[in-house]
Amino acid sequence: MLLDLLIEAGNLKKLPRTGWLLRGVPNPESIADHSYRVALITLFLADELKASGVEIDVERALKIALIHDLAEARVTDIPLSAQYYLDKGKAEKKAAMELFIKTPNPREYFRLWREYEEGLSREGRLVKFADRLEMLIQAYEYERAGFADLDEFWGALDYLRESEFYGHFKELVEGLAERRTGR
Amino acid sequence: MLLDLLIEAGNLKKLPRTGWLLRGVPNPESIADHSYRVALITLFLADELKASGVEIDVERALKIALIHDLAEARVTDIPLSAQYYLDKGKAEKKAAMELFIKTPNPREYFRLWREYEEGLSREGRLVKFADRLEMLIQAYEYERAGFADLDEFWGALDYLRESEFYGHFKELVEGLAERRTGR
Amino acid sequence: MLLDLLIEAGNLKKLPRTGWLLRGVPNPESIADHSYRVALITLFLADELKASGVEIDVERALKIALIHDLAEARVTDIPLSAQYYLDKGKAEKKAAMELFIKTPNPREYFRLWREYEEGLSREGRLVKFADRLEMLIQAYEYERAGFADLDEFWGALDYLRESEFYGHFKELVEGLAERRTGR
Amino acid sequence: MLLDLLIEAGNLKKLPRTGWLLRGVPNPESIADHSYRVALITLFLADELKASGVEIDVERALKIALIHDLAEARVTDIPLSAQYYLDKGKAEKKAAMELFIKTPNPREYFRLWREYEEGLSREGRLVKFADRLEMLIQAYEYERAGFADLDEFWGALDYLRESEFYGHFKELVEGLAERRTGR
Amino acid sequence: MLLDLLIEAGNLKKLPRTGWLLRGVPNPESIADHSYRVALITLFLADELKASGVEIDVERALKIALIHDLAEARVTDIPLSAQYYLDKGKAEKKAAMELFIKTPNPREYFRLWREYEEGLSREGRLVKFADRLEMLIQAYEYERAGFADLDEFWGALDYLRESEFYGHFKELVEGLAERRTGR
Amino acid sequence: MLLDLLIEAGNLKKLPRTGWLLRGVPNPESIADHSYRVALITLFLADELKASGVEIDVERALKIALIHDLAEARVTDIPLSAQYYLDKGKAEKKAAMELFIKTPNPREYFRLWREYEEGLSREGRLVKFADRLEMLIQAYEYERAGFADLDEFWGALDYLRESEFYGHFKELVEGLAERRTGR
Repeated sequence: MLLDLLIEAGNLKKLPRTGWLLRGVPNPESIADHSYRVALITLFLADELKASGVEIDVERALKIALIHDLAEARVTDIPLSAQYYLDKGKAEKKAAMELFIKTPNPREYFRLWREYEEGLSREGRLVKFADRLEMLIQAYEYERAGFADLDEFWGALDYLRESEFYGHFKELVEGLAERRTGR
Repeated sequence: MLLDLLIEAGNLKKLPRTGWLLRGVPNPESIADHSYRVALITLFLADELKASGVEIDVERALKIALIHDLAEARVTDIPLSAQYYLDKGKAEKKAAMELFIKTPNPREYFRLWREYEEGLSREGRLVKFADRLEMLIQAYEYERAGFADLDEFWGALDYLRESEFYGHFKELVEGLAERRTGR
Repeated sequence: MLLDLLIEAGNLKKLPRTGWLLRGVPNPESIADHSYRVALITLFLADELKASGVEIDVERALKIALIHDLAEARVTDIPLSAQYYLDKGKAEKKAAMELFIKTPNPREYFRLWREYEEGLSREGRLVKFADRLEMLIQAYEYERAGFADLDEFWGALDYLRESEFYGHFKELVEGLAERRTGR
Repeated sequence: MLLDLLIEAGNLKKLPRTGWLLRGVPNPESIADHSYRVALITLFLADELKASGVEIDVERALKIALIHDLAEARVTDIPLSAQYYLDKGKAEKKAAMELFIKTPNPREYFRLWREYEEGLSREGRLVKFADRLEMLIQAYEYERAGFADLDEFWGALDYLRESEFYGHFKELVEGLAERRTGR
Repeated sequence: MLLDLLIEAGNLKKLPRTGWLLRGVPNPESIADHSYRVALITLFLADELKASGVEIDVERALKIALIHDLAEARVTDIPLSAQYYLDKGKAEKKAAMELFIKTPNPREYFRLWREYEEGLSREGRLVKFADRLEMLIQAYEYERAGFADLDEFWGALDYLRESEFYGHFKELVEGLAERRTGR
Repeated sequence: MLLDLLIEAGNLKKLPRTGWLLRGVPNPESIADHSYRVALITLFLADELKASGVEIDVERALKIALIHDLAEARVTDIPLSAQYYLDKGKAEKKAAMELFIKTPNPREYFRLWREYEEGLSREGRLVKFADRLEMLIQAYEYERAGFADLDEFWGALDYLRESEFYGHFKELVEGLAERRTGR
């Protein structure tokens, strides 16, 4: 039922984001912590895009943001080091399908999920942009607090700079990059 | 500007929900953890309401869910025991206003925030319903894990049962109540 | 009665000092941790003042130190970022009054509490000096351990340097400042 | 110097009370957390005794409470299971002596410490009473939160009941015992 | 080289055992915590078997115990809920192979690893027996401390009872089962 | 009997390594975490020594590694600061003896324990080498993650360089030293 799904989503609060954990951050953020800010970023960016005249379905974008990591409630946050050995994408796809069966509209949610995963829609790609941006803001926060060994994450800056949304959010992206350097 | 707001929203990941803390749950969920599931619940409930023919603006509801606790990034999660001594609502209102100034559209976000706080719209009231429901699901999870002393929280069941949305989500609410009793 | 108060004082062990938390220190000290060292510092400083011929009531100073943060058992450690939006002093005053009613001598304890809060007596002001000093020693410890982003706290050095007690404890204050710089 | 001692006292914030740890309480209270409430209890009990006409030096009692566990900043909280194999008392005595050398008045503080350790004065014995009472209040709090396996601690009730102070604080002690049973 | 492997093995200290985490145990044991006791159990059981006249290579058994979870340094402790969606065995096999390349004798270590994974030798099967037993002792400890919702784990009792080693360690297995029931 | 010992060994998972704790690392590794990697290092080094023609009993070395810190399940990880005041070696010796009584072969295990403690055999000395190396790898990991104030630990490099095993593992030791410097 839906209740089962909502209880299972509670796993996202308990599960740590393993990337930070493996670099020595004690008690790092949870997957839900991350997902929350991804959705918040999506909200502000989608609204700005719309105000700039870009055609974007804000509701759709928000829905995608909220469910884009839901499969991790079953699969956990499998780190990069593991992805050489197993097909994370495939696993999350299967898990997503089975989770959405517990919703009133499985097909729609799964479609939204694929839009993110496969970049099928502008909304899906915007959430991916928000996802990377969120990670970098968190990396910046951890570095500011004194944690080190996080250089690797900043490769994601390139992803942001090459994105179709970079033109709109250049100030945001470069503002973050400068803050980091200015430290 | 917006970047400052996004960084500040990171506080919600660091700040514990004090209600659990004060009842002896070690390392309880963060405010962001909670907000995430509130938004997820809002998504599913809003979609169901719409499918049932209830007039509801899903986008609006999702936006409200994502910003409803944002003021706590500055004010923190002030527990009930403190609310006898200070005006939490007023504090969060002021903080919300100043936070939203950093967004491209302060007036709109503040309006959305008030819809939640003051119950001005169906969407705002739905998020409050989701907020209470989320808390009870979490209480259930903590009790299932062995934590006790959480009876007080279950008073929120009455709130849910008297809500305008109870008719639509009776199964969900009573399903949760039964699971708890069945323990 | 008194037992209720003592149990409630247990909250001070569970509640984190939010200043550190918001700057990214994971699992920072509790309010009780802080209060303990404030009282210990007060003990040594009061004894030294007395030995130097300053008229000071050591017992009074120790009592003030032990109760100066007691109201936070209900109000929690509200951080600076929240104090723009609510009247922390007023809230703690009310909470202190209601807490002390559970003691055999409410009026006296409340008077002591006010001596700290309003700087009404030398003893009250000494505890405030100890309170700031304690915070800086903790900031030094966190920085030594690798945490950063704590510069803001060191503004309290000025407070110490302008205090009526600075002449007596210059060595202590400047010793700490030098250790920090020498890092 | 004194600064060294104050920094070293910071260890008491970092060190867990091992009794709880070994019974499975995650992230239990620190030694400083415990010492804080011992001193607070001492304050209220000493004031009550005095009001009842018992001759007691409140200042003395508070000083003892604040330094009674200071040696653990070097020796740590050695649990019962270890005390069969090493002489904790002797170790703490030596450590206390060396720590107090950093104070302006080593001899006096060491005397106070011995009053607690060896029960040489009414004030010293009162702090021991407060120390045991504090432990039981904490045990009660942990049990209320859902932790189990803490029966062993309650043997300390006998200590309290046989104490010279029991007559004065019977209500407090039995009130706690009843709360536990009433759970 | 070997140093890289040893540093990477440090991941096992940072990574939680997800089974406990998902059932609400805060800050549960690490994979290394678990592996340590598996190896310790293997030591005692292998020695006992040998003393009883069973032909067993103790050195071999210990080596297997120490490396049986090494692949999780890259793959993490993927919980049961994820194993429906991905081939954990295959992933760990590949990761194990690549990790052992950093040792002086890759082929031998990989063979040992397979003896555990595929049950190819008595020593490999003994470590699996020790692995399950370790998990149940941990479940017992968590339950004794107050955690609940761990029934599912006790299905592993059947595995132990059907094992070729049950005859030798019946007392151990049933002793644990009785302790649990006696709670 | 043996079950009691195995449960007691669970303490090693709960007890922090106090050296890190006292230098401000939050939630540092457990004693079991450390022991695990000591045993793993012992495994690889013993195998290499043997391959180089050094006469070494690998099984013996592994057994020693697994039990070398077992006494800390009762005595805890007493830090250096405490060792001026109590005889840690003597305490652990007594505790080890009493613990091993619960095993089928107390005399043998105690002998192995002494080989480590007193350096009576090449195997015992190799485990001590592994113990120090493990600590330095951990120090390196913590420093890499941003923690500071760990210089003191690196004095152990001298121990490694003067060891009889240094010739065989020079590359390993100096590789670690260089990584640290290269940071």
